[in-house]
Amino acid sequence: MGKLVVVALGGNALLRSNQKGTFQEQLQNVEETCEALMEFVKNDDRLVIGHGNGPQVGNVMLQHEAGHKTFGLPAMPMDYCVSETQGSIGYLIGMGFHRVMAKAGVNKNVVTMVTEVVVDKNDPMFGNPTKPVGPYYTKEEADALAAATGTRYNEDPRGRGWRKVVPSPKPLRIENIDIVRQLADNGNIVVTVGGGGIPVVVDNGIVTGVEAVIDKDLASSLAAVQINADAFYILTDVPQVYVNFKKENQKALSDVTVDEMKHYLAEGQFTEGSMAPKVRAAIAFVEATGKEAFITDAQGLVSKTGTKIRR
Amino acid sequence: MGKLVVVALGGNALLRSNQKGTFQEQLQNVEETCEALMEFVKNDDRLVIGHGNGPQVGNVMLQHEAGHKTFGLPAMPMDYCVSETQGSIGYLIGMGFHRVMAKAGVNKNVVTMVTEVVVDKNDPMFGNPTKPVGPYYTKEEADALAAATGTRYNEDPRGRGWRKVVPSPKPLRIENIDIVRQLADNGNIVVTVGGGGIPVVVDNGIVTGVEAVIDKDLASSLAAVQINADAFYILTDVPQVYVNFKKENQKALSDVTVDEMKHYLAEGQFTEGSMAPKVRAAIAFVEATGKEAFITDAQGLVSKTGTKIRR
Repeated sequence: MGKLVVVALGGNALLRSNQKGTFQEQLQNVEETCEALMEFVKNDDRLVIGHGNGPQVGNVMLQHEAGHKTFGLPAMPMDYCVSETQGSIGYLIGMGFHRVMAKAGVNKNVVTMVTEVVVDKNDPMFGNPTKPVGPYYTKEEADALAAATGTRYNEDPRGRGWRKVVPSPKPLRIENIDIVRQLADNGNIVVTVGGGGIPVVVDNGIVTGVEAVIDKDLASSLAAVQINADAFYILTDVPQVYVNFKKENQKALSDVTVDEMKHYLAEGQFTEGSMAPKVRAAIAFVEATGKEAFITDAQGLVSKTGTKIRR
Repeated sequence: MGKLVVVALGGNALLRSNQKGTFQEQLQNVEETCEALMEFVKNDDRLVIGHGNGPQVGNVMLQHEAGHKTFGLPAMPMDYCVSETQGSIGYLIGMGFHRVMAKAGVNKNVVTMVTEVVVDKNDPMFGNPTKPVGPYYTKEEADALAAATGTRYNEDPRGRGWRKVVPSPKPLRIENIDIVRQLADNGNIVVTVGGGGIPVVVDNGIVTGVEAVIDKDLASSLAAVQINADAFYILTDVPQVYVNFKKENQKALSDVTVDEMKHYLAEGQFTEGSMAPKVRAAIAFVEATGKEAFITDAQGLVSKTGTKIRR
C-alpha cells in the first residue's frame, strides 16, 4: 500500500473565475483535476480530499437571497449553505473520479462524508469578522440588514457594494476523522472537510452551527495532522510559490524549509486571503508531523515540480 | 449488538406542510424524529437512515430558478439539486442526533454519505415521466421551456399551473452500499440514499447524472435488502396503514401478511404517490429477506403500535 496523502483542492479546481459555473463546466474542471490526482491512485496511495467552495457557496447564498425575494422562501444560515455545497461538490468529485478511473481501468470507491468542523465559541475571530460572503448590497440595504440581524457588513474594496462579513475561526476538531482514516486505509478515496467543513460550536454537549467560514487549507491541514498523513498537498492555480511575486526579481520556490517560509511570511511576501493562508496551513502540517507539504497546481502535481516545504 | 435496522424518514420528519421551512423549524422537527429513533440507539441497534427530500429539493429548484432570473446564475440539473439536499438534510440529521444523544448521555458517530443510486438507462419510466418537480409556470412559459429543453411539462391537477415532470425509475444499485453496512456494523449511525439517492446511469463505465427522482422508500428498501437488514421501518405521518381510509368502515392494519397487502393494493386501497409506494417498498423488503417491515409514525415507533408486514 502506498502513502496516506491529503490533498486540498482550491476553488478553481472546480470553477474557474472566467466561467459561469454551469454543471458541464464544473464537471469538466473536476475531471481534469481527478485526472491529475490519478498520479496518487495509480501509486495505490490512500487519498483523502479536502476542497474549497468559495464560488459555489457564493452562488448558493445568492440563490437563497433570490428565492427569498421572489418566492418568500426562508434564506438559510451559512452553515446550512456550506452543507449544501458539501453535497454538490462531493457528488461532482465522485463522478469525476469514477470517470477517470473507468478510463484507466481502476476501480475504487469514492466516499463523500458531510463533515462538521468544531471551532471554539471563544475564538477571538468571532469578535473580528473579516471574510466577505454572499451578495453585494447598497449601503442602505446593508445598514438595514445589519440592524435587523446583528451581522456586520463591510464595503467591498473594489467598490462593488457592501457585503456581509463573517468570522474565520480556527478549526479545532474534525467530526468523524477516525472514520476518514479507516475508510482511506481500506483503499477508498475519501472526500471530507468540504468548504473547510460545516462550522459548529459545542456548548455543554449541544452542537450548534455558526455563521462562519473555516479556511479550507487549514481544515485540510488539520485533517492531515489528525490522520497522521504521509504528505499534504495544496492544489492551487500556480505551479509553485513565488517570492517577489510579479516583480523583476520574482523567484519560484522549489524546496524550502519551514524556517525559510516563516521568514518570507514575516517579510509579507505572500498575499493575505490567497497564498499566505496556504503557506501557514502547509507549515502547520510540517511542524506537527515532520512530513513534507507541497503547494502546486495540477500540472505541477503530475510533473512533480511544485514547492516542497519541509523541516 | 442489536439488530441492523433501516429507517426511511418521510419528508414530514423534516419539514411539515404547514411550515415555511426555516432552519429552526427543520432542526426542531429533526430533533423530534431523532428522539423517537433513540429507541433503536438505546437498544444498541445498528441504524441506517434513508430520507426523503420533497419539500427541500422543491425549494432548491425554486432558488435555482430565482437565482437564474435575478442574478443570471446557471440553474442546475435535478441530480445536482438532490446532491445539495443530501448535504443539508444529512447535516440536520447529524445535528439532531448529536443533540438527543447528548441529552441521553450516548455517544455515536453519525456519518452522512453522499450517495448515487444507479438506475437503468432503458428503464421504461424514462419514456413516461410522471413525477412533478420544481416551480409552477404558465402554459406559455411551460411550452417555451419544453421546446427549449425537451423536458415534459404537465398541468397541475389542482390548477396551480404547469410543472416539469421527471421520470421515477427503479433503483438498481446503491453506490458504496458495502461501506454503509460496514460503518453501521461498527456502531456508527449512517445516513444514505437521501432523497432516494442521486440518480445516475452507467454507460460503458461512464457515470452520468439524470433528470429523475428515485422513490425514497424504494431506495431505502433496496438498501435494507442489500445490507441484509433485520428490519425495515418506513416513518410517515400516520401511526398505521388503513384500509377504507377515511370511510365509515376504516380499519387500521396492525399485523398483515404480504399476500394480504398485495390484495389490498390490487383493490386500490392505497393512494398512488402516497401510501401505495410505501406498501410496495415494504413488500419488496419482506419478500427479499423474509424479515419484517413496519409502517408507522414517530409515536408508533416508540409505542410499537405501527403496521407490521410479514411473510
